[in-house]
Amino acid sequence: VRVIPRARLAWRSVRTVRPGGEFALIERLLAHVPSGSGVLVGPGDDAAVVTGAARMLVTTDMLVEGRHFDLALSSPADVGYKALMVNASDVAAMGGVPRYAVVAAGVPDAGEAAEQLAEGLGEAARELDVGIVGGDTVAAPQVVISIALLGEPGERIVTRAGARPGDALCVTGELGAAAAGLGLWRANTTEARELLERFPGLLRAHRHGRARVREGGAAAATGARAMIDLSDGLLADAGHLCAASGVGLDVDGGAIPLAPGVAEARALLPRLGTGDDYELAIALPPGRVEELAGAIAPTPLTRVGTFTEQPGLRVDGSPAEPEGWDHFA
Amino acid sequence: VRVIPRARLAWRSVRTVRPGGEFALIERLLAHVPSGSGVLVGPGDDAAVVTGAARMLVTTDMLVEGRHFDLALSSPADVGYKALMVNASDVAAMGGVPRYAVVAAGVPDAGEAAEQLAEGLGEAARELDVGIVGGDTVAAPQVVISIALLGEPGERIVTRAGARPGDALCVTGELGAAAAGLGLWRANTTEARELLERFPGLLRAHRHGRARVREGGAAAATGARAMIDLSDGLLADAGHLCAASGVGLDVDGGAIPLAPGVAEARALLPRLGTGDDYELAIALPPGRVEELAGAIAPTPLTRVGTFTEQPGLRVDGSPAEPEGWDHFA
Repeated sequence: VRVIPRARLAWRSVRTVRPGGEFALIERLLAHVPSGSGVLVGPGDDAAVVTGAARMLVTTDMLVEGRHFDLALSSPADVGYKALMVNASDVAAMGGVPRYAVVAAGVPDAGEAAEQLAEGLGEAARELDVGIVGGDTVAAPQVVISIALLGEPGERIVTRAGARPGDALCVTGELGAAAAGLGLWRANTTEARELLERFPGLLRAHRHGRARVREGGAAAATGARAMIDLSDGLLADAGHLCAASGVGLDVDGGAIPLAPGVAEARALLPRLGTGDDYELAIALPPGRVEELAGAIAPTPLTRVGTFTEQPGLRVDGSPAEPEGWDHFA
Repeated sequence: VRVIPRARLAWRSVRTVRPGGEFALIERLLAHVPSGSGVLVGPGDDAAVVTGAARMLVTTDMLVEGRHFDLALSSPADVGYKALMVNASDVAAMGGVPRYAVVAAGVPDAGEAAEQLAEGLGEAARELDVGIVGGDTVAAPQVVISIALLGEPGERIVTRAGARPGDALCVTGELGAAAAGLGLWRANTTEARELLERFPGLLRAHRHGRARVREGGAAAATGARAMIDLSDGLLADAGHLCAASGVGLDVDGGAIPLAPGVAEARALLPRLGTGDDYELAIALPPGRVEELAGAIAPTPLTRVGTFTEQPGLRVDGSPAEPEGWDHFA
């Protein structure tokens, strides 16, 4: 394979077309994002060329204004940051390491918002050591950002299938903060605003949650049998693990580690949604729980249940519906 | 790398969550798309696992309703087909072979349109032998589809840089049909409708254009020095080649192969746009033009210009602006 040196692919190429238009925008956006390592041909050609591996992880997630975020609550930078982190969370849930991303963004105009979006994207990319290798910008009535992320597997690839009866279900971190933050913000009552002030972590979780890449890698290395990220909510995602693995699950409701303020938010808003946590749910041989907890510290690891031969999902012994986030519900 | 057998990742896993909702939709959509070869973990997990290569091509393109297509003109199936083909065209322009795609789609509801979109996507994927390995569906006020495509390089990777003074600029196929079709349809005058009836290829090019994958591979094998796909329009895209290669270009305006009906459309609509062709523009040593023409037959190959030491773009000797499509103009 012969590759033209990257230096010849400078983005100045696009300067020739209509300064101030789409191409100038792309160039401004690229100033905010890292190009990463292992990139043989970066942005500015028809396709990027990256250094691959025998096995590659691939995932995509799209965030749509009004559905996943509200620009009165999240800044464009928050949205750019989150768009990459939700994808990184999927790669983490396979035990992999995020490497290269391509970004398609629809924005109403070529102004400030697009640039802030790129700033947030760049922040996430630097934290994750991900190269932004290509993209597409489109004028769209509302902000929409779609990212596809390539990752490299770790020593083991951990899918949703593989949990066995007797395995422990463990979760990283604390749950419910992002959904509580968004729910309280939308409720916008005096009590809701007071809770948001008392627990600033709630809105921070919605705006600026981080993917558990280190923890996912450690879980794979420690012998995780199945793993999923908690984007839909604990019960829904645990239900995915059960279905893919052909097992059931007993959840200890009292053991679920709620983030500070989530219990208070649920008392105020009984129909509060769930999901959007980007923590990991991990099926682990019980003898490995301590080891993994030590490996990922200071990130908490909490055992919240046990997989069973008996199918179905039970919380504290009672059958439970795998509630979760459904865009079309 | 240990991989869980694919059979255990059946999409039935998602059936457990709210029949009729997002997960059932995903399942229905997947019925229409091929899973491809080389896929170790397909749709239904946090990320797909595909067989990689030492070098991988990556690209993304997003189509937005009202901007790239009008559902009064293109069916959802046309949109799904096109969304994959525009990405395949980018991989073709590097001399590569499309392999795996992830698809993020925003649709107003979980109804018929989403399913037709998947049908069109599946048609394109089968034609290209591409596996749809993952996706994301979102409820959105208008249809938006974003695809990221992975490809494998051929023997040589051909970028936009590398054209040398004296090289021939050649184009595949015939140009202008898609833009003429859309322009006439939007004009919607009696004369415009008559032209569309006389030249059905114009609307067909906009709705159902095919990527030149075979031709891109042949061009790379025949010694193409630089290549780009004509999504922005011949002069704009030739300008990209010039800027990336550090050369100028003399275009022979009369040699540009217009598709049947394009000249008539331009006579009717002097401000007709350009681009959206998905033909390839290829910089080639002049001695190789015949050879490539033979290799890609029956697809036409036409020499339309010569790269020059002197910078700038000239058509029939007069300086030309690299006009093209700009979403933010």
